[in-house]
Amino acid sequence: MRDDNLARRVLKGDRRAVSMAITKVENRDEGAAQLMESIGKKTGNAFILGITGPPGTGKSTLVDKLISEYRKTKKMKVGVVAVDPTSPITGGALLGDRIRMVKHTLDAGVFIRSMASRGWAGGLSGAVSEVIQIMDASGIDVIIIETVGIGQSDIEIMNIAHAVMVVTMPGLGDEIQVSKGGLMEIGDVYVVNKSDLPGADGMVINLLGMVHDMKGRSPPVLKVSALTSEGIDTLFSSVEGLRKKLQSPEGKAMRLRSAKGMILELAKRRLIDELEDRAESRTSSLVEMVANHELSYEEAASRLVKG
Amino acid sequence: MRDDNLARRVLKGDRRAVSMAITKVENRDEGAAQLMESIGKKTGNAFILGITGPPGTGKSTLVDKLISEYRKTKKMKVGVVAVDPTSPITGGALLGDRIRMVKHTLDAGVFIRSMASRGWAGGLSGAVSEVIQIMDASGIDVIIIETVGIGQSDIEIMNIAHAVMVVTMPGLGDEIQVSKGGLMEIGDVYVVNKSDLPGADGMVINLLGMVHDMKGRSPPVLKVSALTSEGIDTLFSSVEGLRKKLQSPEGKAMRLRSAKGMILELAKRRLIDELEDRAESRTSSLVEMVANHELSYEEAASRLVKG
Repeated sequence: MRDDNLARRVLKGDRRAVSMAITKVENRDEGAAQLMESIGKKTGNAFILGITGPPGTGKSTLVDKLISEYRKTKKMKVGVVAVDPTSPITGGALLGDRIRMVKHTLDAGVFIRSMASRGWAGGLSGAVSEVIQIMDASGIDVIIIETVGIGQSDIEIMNIAHAVMVVTMPGLGDEIQVSKGGLMEIGDVYVVNKSDLPGADGMVINLLGMVHDMKGRSPPVLKVSALTSEGIDTLFSSVEGLRKKLQSPEGKAMRLRSAKGMILELAKRRLIDELEDRAESRTSSLVEMVANHELSYEEAASRLVKG
Repeated sequence: MRDDNLARRVLKGDRRAVSMAITKVENRDEGAAQLMESIGKKTGNAFILGITGPPGTGKSTLVDKLISEYRKTKKMKVGVVAVDPTSPITGGALLGDRIRMVKHTLDAGVFIRSMASRGWAGGLSGAVSEVIQIMDASGIDVIIIETVGIGQSDIEIMNIAHAVMVVTMPGLGDEIQVSKGGLMEIGDVYVVNKSDLPGADGMVINLLGMVHDMKGRSPPVLKVSALTSEGIDTLFSSVEGLRKKLQSPEGKAMRLRSAKGMILELAKRRLIDELEDRAESRTSSLVEMVANHELSYEEAASRLVKG
């Protein structure tokens, strides 16, 4: 397909074109930059919700519930970008949890894409910013980015979102699991999932204390059980509140924050890509010189940075 | 203290000077670059061992045991760089596990430093490369870098090491926990720690199958119980074997690998630092332009990259 045709079809919301565009960008195929240039101008309509939290807290199940609610009550189109840890060598992402969302793939109003987080640059995922732009331009109303909140980098992908939901659960070695990764600072809404398990109330109280300690912040802390459906309604209202806030005058700060996150993510990825391209050809001679004490590590790094 | 005096004292192995030099470099104080230039030339004597694995597998306890063995049987000086996840906003590292190593801090032949892994750039830790160089130049014989193997970035710090030990334990949700993060590809020795727990033998068999599936690799898989001391001797022999290999003609590949890891880590950190400095002053105008659709995200990122 010609690129301008592909862009046009993306803008019309053609699912297959969206899929092809994402693959093109992920593979850095020829024409990807031009495609993004055409598509980028048509973005800015979607609400981008980030969802993160430790492994096993049931994030994917909550994503599944949110998709259902948005489809059923709002008839909105939903996109999901699921960022998974990957192997630096084999390059594959492991997608076990995603199986829960599979049922939605038969729904033409839902678009799910899994991405592997990348190597060295830590969590600078393949092309999260571009995938979001493509989904946004294709007319998707709500885009959910899900990351496993274990590395800093996973958390920092959340800077691309307009609003962030942090998911936790009772019995996670207490609050330390959540505080450790910096999750306390980034949430617009906190969820204690699996609230049918013992310790949920204590966890809510702890979380309230911790998030409200951060000055000027008072995000809600909600008890939710995907199993019994307790709290799903409240959770959905809370997310809807954030989406409506984005469309209000107050939403400007949310937009600026997301745009800043997007620009920085793109810029960093580009820098690291350029460096890695140079490193391919240049490192071995620099390494030899360092090994022979003809050059310091710092000087070698400088030369590599300068290209 | 004047910088050339500080460098001289580091080279003499003065512990306080080592500590000051590390702080200087971490804080990017004036003179840090010059200090590294003086010190960098005197490196290349230490054996750098990376230790990584999922949280809770007892890595710090094994580090503790290795320190004791090196001190007791070899009288060697040991340095430890413990890289911890940190909060992107508060910037603090949480050092719970390190408490086990505290007893060694009274030993003048042991130098332990905890470092926080950094924000955006994901696991590009504050100054791991520099800290290792300072320790090396100060006459430390064995430098252990310990990271929590949950993010890619933590694993990639392992590229700086001459050899890598991957620590796991029975009952970790089977092998998936280890395979997920790419740990299967990077180990020169694998440890099933807490082998007093049920399932240790099965885990060893699984691991053997998995690591030997990678072509041309046959790293040992050792059962160790820090509790009963089972396998500690074998583990130590295995580590010593790696250290001796570094000093043999075969060690050249290990040195080149580590040098490459150091250079890349320094180069990437430098690029990201420069970008973040520019971002401080430049992002807000770029963000406004993107928000007003005067500029695409890609173009904004390009401008930020160009500075």
